[in-house]
Amino acid sequence: MSSQPPHPALLIPGPIEFDDAVLQSMSHYSESHVGPAFVSTFGDTLSMLRKLFQTSHASSQPFVISGSGTLGWDLVAANLAEPGDDVLVLHTGYFADSFADCFETYGSRPTQLKAPIGSRPQLPEIEKALKEKKYKLLTVTHVDTSTGVLSELKGLSELVRRVSPETLLIVDGVCSVGSEEIEFDKWQLDGVITASQKGIGCPAGLSISMFSGRAIETFKNRKTPPGSYFASMKNWLPIMQNYEAKKPSYFATPSPQLIHALNTSLTQILSKPLSERFAIHREASQKVKKAVTDLGLRQLASDSADQANGMTAIYLPENVKVPELLPNLFKKGVVFAGGLHKDIAAKYIRFGHMGVSVTDSNRDDIDRAIKALETGLSEVGYQKA
Amino acid sequence: MSSQPPHPALLIPGPIEFDDAVLQSMSHYSESHVGPAFVSTFGDTLSMLRKLFQTSHASSQPFVISGSGTLGWDLVAANLAEPGDDVLVLHTGYFADSFADCFETYGSRPTQLKAPIGSRPQLPEIEKALKEKKYKLLTVTHVDTSTGVLSELKGLSELVRRVSPETLLIVDGVCSVGSEEIEFDKWQLDGVITASQKGIGCPAGLSISMFSGRAIETFKNRKTPPGSYFASMKNWLPIMQNYEAKKPSYFATPSPQLIHALNTSLTQILSKPLSERFAIHREASQKVKKAVTDLGLRQLASDSADQANGMTAIYLPENVKVPELLPNLFKKGVVFAGGLHKDIAAKYIRFGHMGVSVTDSNRDDIDRAIKALETGLSEVGYQKA
Repeated sequence: MSSQPPHPALLIPGPIEFDDAVLQSMSHYSESHVGPAFVSTFGDTLSMLRKLFQTSHASSQPFVISGSGTLGWDLVAANLAEPGDDVLVLHTGYFADSFADCFETYGSRPTQLKAPIGSRPQLPEIEKALKEKKYKLLTVTHVDTSTGVLSELKGLSELVRRVSPETLLIVDGVCSVGSEEIEFDKWQLDGVITASQKGIGCPAGLSISMFSGRAIETFKNRKTPPGSYFASMKNWLPIMQNYEAKKPSYFATPSPQLIHALNTSLTQILSKPLSERFAIHREASQKVKKAVTDLGLRQLASDSADQANGMTAIYLPENVKVPELLPNLFKKGVVFAGGLHKDIAAKYIRFGHMGVSVTDSNRDDIDRAIKALETGLSEVGYQKA
Repeated sequence: MSSQPPHPALLIPGPIEFDDAVLQSMSHYSESHVGPAFVSTFGDTLSMLRKLFQTSHASSQPFVISGSGTLGWDLVAANLAEPGDDVLVLHTGYFADSFADCFETYGSRPTQLKAPIGSRPQLPEIEKALKEKKYKLLTVTHVDTSTGVLSELKGLSELVRRVSPETLLIVDGVCSVGSEEIEFDKWQLDGVITASQKGIGCPAGLSISMFSGRAIETFKNRKTPPGSYFASMKNWLPIMQNYEAKKPSYFATPSPQLIHALNTSLTQILSKPLSERFAIHREASQKVKKAVTDLGLRQLASDSADQANGMTAIYLPENVKVPELLPNLFKKGVVFAGGLHKDIAAKYIRFGHMGVSVTDSNRDDIDRAIKALETGLSEVGYQKA
């Protein structure tokens, strides 16, 4: 029996449904942010992130900072790029535009490589771009929350290492960490930024990231000071290193309650092999995608190789309106999200299938959601052709 | 009976002890950040902040952003000052140095007006400084968490309006909002930045601020774009206005659980007259300060007019060491903080007396802490002369 009151299952691409124990950790009694008990909890949490990202290099550096996923962009743009640096931004939807804005704010020069909606830039185009100009960083949105497009990282990394080995490879993993396979060391990633409220399964309020030793060296070799104060690695690096060494340290007050919840969530995730977790997400995703196809509907991500395992973006039939369907589904106890990609926002919905909704066998969120979608569509007048 | 497990009373100058209902709100089941239920909760929370800050001008603008108190500095420095602008920073301890660093990060030029430890810059010096140079902003730490020094805002505001009326008056109220009287409109303040975990009584993780219509106009009239992305008012202003108008809006995902907790805390605070709340804090503070004097100890804030009502910074006797006394007090069930001002950190302790520890008559935190301090000091060898 869940300790949560009955409520509609939140099946948007984040925030997701949370486990009882994680939510209970949010109510932890107040502790000093520099007291030994909390310092130990925070230190363990940082160490667990190394396992989640599959990195065993001592030089890799985790960061957990009060904020949102967006703060990760500042962490990258204000610390790893310097004014005037060129940055190649692979575009798969809404989030690349914003990441590019963030780079511009701090004075670097983003070049966007855009793909048609529902697709992603292909390796030959990326190779061409990398050969045309020297890029300090290349960024890729692992799963674009606005389109459900999954980018392939292993081949991308091999390409970058071959064609432009000094370029740092930065992954926006806000909608992928915890639900998609990420091998930080093996794929030679330089940075993955994410947030707490999606695949990691902890309430929103934390910016979570991992950077390679090479990225940290790039930061340390800056010629100009970091462009942000709150997102400055100069301010945060010693704090993260101290907490992980179980030494109290202060730059800005962390949120003990959120860190406890993250600790609980990571402990749960790491209690089983990560490969199993990713397999369960793939299976659930296949079930959802099959149901979508069976309903005669199309996904934004047209190529099956480009489809995320933690969410599905679904084009609605011509005669079905988002503001009609979503309240109908809400009444059936499931919450989906509307469209986010500005060009086609009114034409599609997003179904998130991450975390306990797919990993907890006591939950039937996904089956109920598929059923609600079938019934709901027919109730608002859709008949499969 | 509290629903919290037995634990030592956290009496540091933030985070503070939290009310049961506030902590329970932290465990709220997951909700969409753009769904009508949460949008309404967030909107109400923003409106309640207007009452807490005592502002009824429609042009005043509240902001609640995932982050920490420190983020408030970026909000000021990256939006209200432009590169090259002069800023006068009144210095009462640790926090002015950091706020000045933050201004420098974004290219403005801070001038610090420093007072001896335990004191604050006096009005005649401030007047002289304001006449020497044109300052875009003047910042003051209302309560300096490192020294327990309280700055007086009403007279300061009158001075600024008389001598340099265009200068924006910005208050760092991280350790004062909720425990010290603040009359945003009457005192003609232009900005007050704070955090959730002190006088407001909600767990850490939120940057909370209020800006005047004049400050927002100053932002809108910038000649250069904001210096930060995550802390950009350009990105956040429409979001805050939409939430308060109960319209869904998205820039970065807020933390529904923290916003619920803040909503609960503000509802509790505003259920009684604010004047009563401030009077209770003053009384508790007087009790603590009398006990300190009775023990033959001195405060960092030497002048009683400069002493905060939510915390007390206490010089230890010569022969008593912080690392000896604090664990002794911990065993007695109370947690105090060590020193923070780098010049004298080893010589003093800090006792926070804010929020439910003073307002909840079912709690005896303050009396227990005073008693623990008396006994603890004698156990580590101190005898009043």
